[in-house]
Amino acid sequence: MTFKIIKKSMSSQARAGIIETPHGNIETPVFMPVGTKATVKALSPQQIEESGASIILSNTYHLALRPGIEIIQSAGGLHQFMNWKKPILTDSGGYQVFSLSKMRRIQEEGVLFQSHIDGSKCLFTPESVVDLQIGFQSDIMMPLDICSPYPCSKEDASKDLDYTLNWASRAKTHWEKQDTQSLLFGIQQGGVYPDLREKSAKKLIELDFPGYAIGGVSVGEPETIMNRLTDWGCSLLPENKPRYLMGVGLPNNLEYAIHKGIDMFDCVIPTRLARHGQFFLGKERHNIRNQIYSKDLTPLDPNCQCYSCLNFSRAYIRHLFMSKEILAMTLMSMHNIYALINLVKTIRNDILS
Amino acid sequence: MTFKIIKKSMSSQARAGIIETPHGNIETPVFMPVGTKATVKALSPQQIEESGASIILSNTYHLALRPGIEIIQSAGGLHQFMNWKKPILTDSGGYQVFSLSKMRRIQEEGVLFQSHIDGSKCLFTPESVVDLQIGFQSDIMMPLDICSPYPCSKEDASKDLDYTLNWASRAKTHWEKQDTQSLLFGIQQGGVYPDLREKSAKKLIELDFPGYAIGGVSVGEPETIMNRLTDWGCSLLPENKPRYLMGVGLPNNLEYAIHKGIDMFDCVIPTRLARHGQFFLGKERHNIRNQIYSKDLTPLDPNCQCYSCLNFSRAYIRHLFMSKEILAMTLMSMHNIYALINLVKTIRNDILS
Repeated sequence: MTFKIIKKSMSSQARAGIIETPHGNIETPVFMPVGTKATVKALSPQQIEESGASIILSNTYHLALRPGIEIIQSAGGLHQFMNWKKPILTDSGGYQVFSLSKMRRIQEEGVLFQSHIDGSKCLFTPESVVDLQIGFQSDIMMPLDICSPYPCSKEDASKDLDYTLNWASRAKTHWEKQDTQSLLFGIQQGGVYPDLREKSAKKLIELDFPGYAIGGVSVGEPETIMNRLTDWGCSLLPENKPRYLMGVGLPNNLEYAIHKGIDMFDCVIPTRLARHGQFFLGKERHNIRNQIYSKDLTPLDPNCQCYSCLNFSRAYIRHLFMSKEILAMTLMSMHNIYALINLVKTIRNDILS
Repeated sequence: MTFKIIKKSMSSQARAGIIETPHGNIETPVFMPVGTKATVKALSPQQIEESGASIILSNTYHLALRPGIEIIQSAGGLHQFMNWKKPILTDSGGYQVFSLSKMRRIQEEGVLFQSHIDGSKCLFTPESVVDLQIGFQSDIMMPLDICSPYPCSKEDASKDLDYTLNWASRAKTHWEKQDTQSLLFGIQQGGVYPDLREKSAKKLIELDFPGYAIGGVSVGEPETIMNRLTDWGCSLLPENKPRYLMGVGLPNNLEYAIHKGIDMFDCVIPTRLARHGQFFLGKERHNIRNQIYSKDLTPLDPNCQCYSCLNFSRAYIRHLFMSKEILAMTLMSMHNIYALINLVKTIRNDILS
C-alpha cells in the first residue's frame, strides 16, 4: 500500500491524502459506511455508490458466523459475494469483544465466542482472524484486539492492552507469511490512560504496520474524552501513515478529528439514525416523524445533492415513515450517508485549496 | 385516450396494443406492479423502472387517508409526490369494501369507512372518488364499486351490482363535467353469476367508458372460477377497448387471461411473495430460505436479466434473508416484478411475431 499526503492544512493538523488499495484509491479524509453483514442496511450496492461511498466496512465476526467463510471464498471474496467493486475494510471482531461481552471468554490463544445465532462455540485467534480476512479479500484488515469498555479500571485496560499487543504481534507475523494483497493495520488501545496509550502506540510502531487505528473510542465515553483520545492518538501515531478513528461518528466529531490529523472514519450512525427516523440537516439532527414535516415539500436538506434530496420531499418521506414503508429507510439512509461523506469531502476540499 | 390494437394472435384471442396516457404510452398486455401507499414496497422509483415497469398502480382509499389529498395536490399530483414519471392507475377503494369489510357500511350515497389508521369516519362517494383521483392526476382512474366476496349469494351479488352500476353512472357523469386528462374505466362485477355479469357489462357499455375492468376476481375463488370469469369478461366486454383483469396474478393466470383477450393486470403477489422469501423460477415458486441455496452461487433465475439476477447469487440473497436484511426484500421484489413483466412482454412479442 501507498499512503500519500497530498496537502497539509495551514491552520490545523488536517491532511488530504490518497490510500491505494487493491480495489482502487481512497481519497482521505474519508467516511466509510458500515455494512456489518455484507450489506449496508437498506441499500443496494448501486445506492451505496450513489451515496458517495468510496470504501465500506464489513465485520469479520458476523461474516464468519453467517454466511461463513466457505461460501464467501467460493464466490471469489467479499466484493464478489456482495457485488461491491470498491475497497472494503473489515473489522476483526474486536468490537464484538466489547459489544457481546457476555458471549465471550478472553484467553491467551484468542477469544472464545458463543455464537449469538445458534450458541455454538467459536474461537477467534489473531491468526484465524487474519486468515478469514484474507479469505474475504479485504483491502484493509484489522487484527484481533480487545476493545476495552468505558469506564474501565487501569488494571483491566492494561490487561486488555497486553493481550491486544501480543495478538497484534502474532497477527503481523502471520500476515507476513501469507501471499496476500490485503493490508493489516494496527489498533491502538489502552482505555483512557495516557501511559497505556503511549505504550500501545510504541509497540505498534515497532511492529511497523501500514496504517494505524485508534480503538476503544465511541464506546459510551463523553465527547471530551473521545476528543482527548483522538488528540493522543494523533500525536503518538506516525504522521506518514493513515490514521483511522474507529466507530466515529457525528458531524462535530468528524470535524474535530480531521483537524487533529485523522484520515479514516466509520460509523453505523447514519444508517441507524435513518432507520429511527432521524436525518441530518447540516450538522443538526431532526426527526421526520415530526408533524411539521407533514406538509413540507422541501427536501430533507435543501442544500443536499443526494438522490433522496434531489427527488423527494420531507412530506413524502414522512408519509413513507409513518406508513412503515421500507423505502423511508432507504431514502433516509442514502441521505445520512451522503451527508457525512459530503461533510468530510468538503473539509478535504478546504484542505486542498 | 387512444387504445390501438397493433396485432392479434393467430391462435388465441390475445392482442398486442398500445394505450396512450398523459404520462406516456403503455404497451399491452401489461403487468402493473402495485404501490398501494405511493410506493412499490421496498423499491425506489429507479428500481421500479429497472424492474421493467411502464405503469404502476396505487390506491385511492389508502392515499386519501394517509397522507391525504391536500399534500398530494400541493406536490403537483401523485407522480410528483412519489417521483414516478410514467403512468399511474389508481384503484377506487372498491377492493377495500371487500378487504376491510368490517370497517365500512355501504349506503346509497357511497361507502362509509372507519379509518383503519385512527378510527375516524370517512365517506367515499362515486363523485368524491373521482375528485380524489383527478387530484392525484392519475392517468387511469377506477370508479367506486363493490367488490363482492367469494362465495357470495346471488341475492347479495345482485344487490352489490346494483350499487356498483348506479355508482358507475354517477362517476361517469361527474367525470364528464371535469376538466381532466385522467381516464375513467368501468368495472364489471356480478359475482360468479353469468346473468349478473352480462347485466353489468351491458350497462357499462351503455355508459361508454374508455376501458373496462373485470372486478371481483382474485378474492379467494378457485382458479377454474377465475378463468370462467375471465372468459365471460372477455366475451362480454368490447374488443376495441382495453380489458383489465383486476388483482391477477400468478404466471399461469396471466398466460391464460392474455390468450382470452385481457390487456392489463395488477397484483401485489410479486412483492408480497418476495417479502416472504419466495421467488419466481420460470413459472415455479421457490423459497430462498431453503438450505439448498446456502452454497448456491447461481442467480435466483439463471435465465433472468433483472438487476438482482445479473448481480447477486442465491447464496448471497439467502444470507441477507436469514440475516433479516432489508436488501433481501428489495432484490427479491425486483426479481419477482421483473419476472412477471417479462413473462407478459414475452407473450406480447410472440403475438407480434
